[in-house]
Amino acid sequence: MSQITVVLPDGSELELEEGATVEDAAYEIGPGLGRDTVAGVIDGELVDKATELPDGARLEIVTPSSDEYRDVLRHSAAHVFAQALQRLHPEARLTIGPWTDDGFYYDIYGVELDEEDLEAIEEEAYDIIEEDLDIERFERSREEAFEFYEDNPFKREILDEEAADEESISFYEQGEFEDLCKGPHVESTGEIGGFALLSISGAYWRGDEDNEMLTRVYGTAFESEDELEEFIERRAEAEERDHRKIGREMDLFSIPDHSPGAPHYHPNGMTIRRELEDYIRSKNDELGYDEVWTPELNKAELWKPTGHYDNFKEEGEMFAWEQDDTEYGLKPMNCANHAHIFDDHQYSYRDLPVRFSEFGTCYRNEQSGELSGLLRVRGFTQDDGHAFIREDQIRGEILSALSVIDDIYGNFDLDVQYKLETKGDNAVGSDEIWSEATDALKDALESEGLEYDVEHGEAAFYGPKIGINAVDAIGREWTIGTVQLDFNIPERLDLTYVGEDNEEHRPVMVHRALLGSFERFMGVIIEHFKGNFPTWLAPEQVRILPVSDDNLGYAKQLQNRYLGDFRVEIEDRSWTVGKKIQQAHDDNVPYMLVVGDNEEEAGTVSVRDREEREEKDVSVEAFRDHLEGEVESKAVEPNFLD
Amino acid sequence: MSQITVVLPDGSELELEEGATVEDAAYEIGPGLGRDTVAGVIDGELVDKATELPDGARLEIVTPSSDEYRDVLRHSAAHVFAQALQRLHPEARLTIGPWTDDGFYYDIYGVELDEEDLEAIEEEAYDIIEEDLDIERFERSREEAFEFYEDNPFKREILDEEAADEESISFYEQGEFEDLCKGPHVESTGEIGGFALLSISGAYWRGDEDNEMLTRVYGTAFESEDELEEFIERRAEAEERDHRKIGREMDLFSIPDHSPGAPHYHPNGMTIRRELEDYIRSKNDELGYDEVWTPELNKAELWKPTGHYDNFKEEGEMFAWEQDDTEYGLKPMNCANHAHIFDDHQYSYRDLPVRFSEFGTCYRNEQSGELSGLLRVRGFTQDDGHAFIREDQIRGEILSALSVIDDIYGNFDLDVQYKLETKGDNAVGSDEIWSEATDALKDALESEGLEYDVEHGEAAFYGPKIGINAVDAIGREWTIGTVQLDFNIPERLDLTYVGEDNEEHRPVMVHRALLGSFERFMGVIIEHFKGNFPTWLAPEQVRILPVSDDNLGYAKQLQNRYLGDFRVEIEDRSWTVGKKIQQAHDDNVPYMLVVGDNEEEAGTVSVRDREEREEKDVSVEAFRDHLEGEVESKAVEPNFLD
Repeated sequence: MSQITVVLPDGSELELEEGATVEDAAYEIGPGLGRDTVAGVIDGELVDKATELPDGARLEIVTPSSDEYRDVLRHSAAHVFAQALQRLHPEARLTIGPWTDDGFYYDIYGVELDEEDLEAIEEEAYDIIEEDLDIERFERSREEAFEFYEDNPFKREILDEEAADEESISFYEQGEFEDLCKGPHVESTGEIGGFALLSISGAYWRGDEDNEMLTRVYGTAFESEDELEEFIERRAEAEERDHRKIGREMDLFSIPDHSPGAPHYHPNGMTIRRELEDYIRSKNDELGYDEVWTPELNKAELWKPTGHYDNFKEEGEMFAWEQDDTEYGLKPMNCANHAHIFDDHQYSYRDLPVRFSEFGTCYRNEQSGELSGLLRVRGFTQDDGHAFIREDQIRGEILSALSVIDDIYGNFDLDVQYKLETKGDNAVGSDEIWSEATDALKDALESEGLEYDVEHGEAAFYGPKIGINAVDAIGREWTIGTVQLDFNIPERLDLTYVGEDNEEHRPVMVHRALLGSFERFMGVIIEHFKGNFPTWLAPEQVRILPVSDDNLGYAKQLQNRYLGDFRVEIEDRSWTVGKKIQQAHDDNVPYMLVVGDNEEEAGTVSVRDREEREEKDVSVEAFRDHLEGEVESKAVEPNFLD
Repeated sequence: MSQITVVLPDGSELELEEGATVEDAAYEIGPGLGRDTVAGVIDGELVDKATELPDGARLEIVTPSSDEYRDVLRHSAAHVFAQALQRLHPEARLTIGPWTDDGFYYDIYGVELDEEDLEAIEEEAYDIIEEDLDIERFERSREEAFEFYEDNPFKREILDEEAADEESISFYEQGEFEDLCKGPHVESTGEIGGFALLSISGAYWRGDEDNEMLTRVYGTAFESEDELEEFIERRAEAEERDHRKIGREMDLFSIPDHSPGAPHYHPNGMTIRRELEDYIRSKNDELGYDEVWTPELNKAELWKPTGHYDNFKEEGEMFAWEQDDTEYGLKPMNCANHAHIFDDHQYSYRDLPVRFSEFGTCYRNEQSGELSGLLRVRGFTQDDGHAFIREDQIRGEILSALSVIDDIYGNFDLDVQYKLETKGDNAVGSDEIWSEATDALKDALESEGLEYDVEHGEAAFYGPKIGINAVDAIGREWTIGTVQLDFNIPERLDLTYVGEDNEEHRPVMVHRALLGSFERFMGVIIEHFKGNFPTWLAPEQVRILPVSDDNLGYAKQLQNRYLGDFRVEIEDRSWTVGKKIQQAHDDNVPYMLVVGDNEEEAGTVSVRDREEREEKDVSVEAFRDHLEGEVESKAVEPNFLD
């Protein structure tokens, strides 16, 4: 019998007989590992422990302590759901039930479910968990499998198409329940500590709208009840912070049907965007960037020499079309246009760095299923910048960019994490150029003592990159800014500067974005602040609440004469003061000024903030002077009443 | 014999026998007019006086005192050119030679001409004018015409295609020269007072690049030598002011081959654009506009209900394409997106006017032959705005917009002219709605005592408009801003607000742009100021000229410590002060600060301005304080040395 070799995570090689499974390999390593084996990861794919190993495979063994264990557990939870469903609704037809990042779903047919049904199924599922049923793999012949599913055309279709060349079909059983399944699964239903059904939606069979509409039930599972509870809490918190919900409530933006993935900024959202623009402009000035503007529409030929055309167009990611015998495209990034502006001049070594910034609007044809509010869009405006530098300027340029980014994120109370992304499969340019550029980025990070993760193969095609992640108020990570080195575009577009030696030299290009895009950054900070924006960003900074209609005149005087430089509204509805305060809280207004007869006579205001602190008899000038300072310093929280 | 009727400009009708010509009609009106008749205008088209009148035609008689007389004169000048050419270059083949707005051109074949040739031809043309040859119309049969042009395939092609169904062919002769021509012409070559040949370029026969390349000679002619001289001077002045030339010299913008008609703003041009943006933002704030942002890319269906799709798409004027089974388009205007933002809310009568402004980038597929620098483009950013108002608010809204526009143009030292544009052929909406809207605009203009021209049939398809023309430093008129009423989009999109009666009512929409687009406005002011921008707009406001390298430190101190809020450069090349001053003049810098040892010791500067005025021993603070005020007040000229 011939031998095969598999490669283990530590790089060592293991020789096995042909036909050996994941479980066999684990026992070969050691009997303890063999007993603990739940599943395997072969060349990156999570598989059943009964899977045969191909020669040369990279193999990881999955045990209850592996990261992948939770995926396996959730796969079994999907079966537990299905079993409970069949006990209560035997008429339901099962289709597919995979695990996901957050749990699992199961698509079913032939049954209508409501909230109450879900509760009953959940209860039944807990019974099944209690029963601690063994989950066992077994095989049926094709013929038997077809017979087993004689009432289920969906499973028969799977057998027909996906298992067409398999004579022996893998099934799993737990108690009375059996399901066509490739695995992997945990050993018994009792391993599931926490189980919850979350929501119901519709889904077409195989995602095709010409097919049957199925019912998709989402659920999740964890090793323990505590972990489940924590998840449910985080989920509720994330729902409350959902930027689409807050965006609607605060009238910040809309994404109408006629412009999928292309947000429209309403006046309130535009106020925030303009404040962000002004802020980033001041940072760009500090960094020595000169602002430019380049059009969205260009001939597609612009992106051929740079390699973008091949990378974006061929993937269908570019909006591109032919009109009047010309192929046009919408710019997927701004770098090609900026490189041409650089190329329009003959710069000398003394002129470098030459830096162009642009609030550049780009379009990318993301799949409609991928679109999500401001966070996954088709149209977005980057706070983009490109520096053309000499090789000896790399370190300084990267460091100043990283330091400004650190400043900026601090201003939003966001923590920063750095990721070094290295050469991927679609990279253009030589290994030598890539390793030179990657080393330069490493050097910059390390010389500042910054910690970073390396993400192998994740870089854009034209150069290695430092990805900058922001960590928000509830611990979620968001990729927003980037600092990227590019030795390729200068080469491909033959960009040059005249050196001290009077010869032509090749500049290095730095791509960088501080916030990433206004869309994504706004999405992140809406959720991070839960709509409670710092005063400098708040669309409405102050609301004046007249105690009665008699105080409206005084309110207007305050608004126009004293607070004319701020975004101030008057609540002029004839409500009680209590209701006016409640409404201002609901609208996330940082400051409320309550003004009644006493205040009007004394020429003062009562200041409340959204944290429900209050101070009476405040002089209007004192409040205004404080507000000026608070806005100027970009304080994260209203701090007059600190 | 049957009778026909023609309508004269005063609206009266004239009865004539069938077959009567323009000249016959003129004699019928009066023998004096008959004798003076040079040509006619039938239904808007300039024609020979021998042209037969169709029944029902609108007829104007052209005499030497008519506006159209100059076109006729220039048509004859084209023949004079051709005659002179044939005398000197009998081998040259004539093709076509029409009049244009500025003169005439003639496309010729089979001869190479240089500057010297043009001078000789011009001299010969003046001889022909001196000879005062009668210009006479006569006819040839088709056969004779073909024979006459046996050596000229171009004229034969014209005979074949354009005169295919005419048996008798119209020719004109003057002295020994004969040319196939439909007229009209003046009576004799002596009527031409001033004649000049201006330039040579290439042109393909019939504009088709698969055809022969011809030589196009441009010329012009006037009734008198004085008028010609004035024209030549204005032309030289316009050339010196050409915004494309100045734009290159001052590095303001470029329009690279990969983005035809889509200007790229370089840092210097972007500085001007940003100043304009800030200025217009402040005016929008004054007018109560809230800024929004909407994407360039939308589904084409967005513009179907508004009528834009039919109007732009069908004309090929829209960038539109199909991708992934969806028809997309780039917005040709911003109004549809703004209307949808309005529609996203339920406004009450108390909320109106609701006003949205946007620096909205639009794209229109203008013919490539029509493109011209910043003045005729495909990609442009409008300083757009839409107000949604009640009918009782029309007059106030129009008046406030007109008054702000008047302010703004004054700030650029531009005179303003108003044009009322009325319903055209492609209009959508009922006559009643149009006349109501047109009356509202008239009423607004007249109540302010503003003079205006009426341009019948020139309005956009969706509503009547007040076009605002700026008159520049050399008397040229530019259409830039606009105020437009729209009763149609609110109807078509079913926009409503809730009235005091709690019923739904239809708002009126006002479209307005103060500058029009940044592109066009920048093109106009570059030419208007000849690159000598007001200090608040100048990309470089101050240049410090150190007398020697020893004064560089002081120069930097001035730049950073005292003038940090302004755009200040230091001339650090080792040149003489005289050369440095000359360079700063060439670069149109408003202020130069000359600093030598004396200034450095005294802590002063010598201030020069671009009008070559100078003052020594100026305190740095005094200059800075003045500069602040000058920029703040947006003074048109540097006025420190007034």
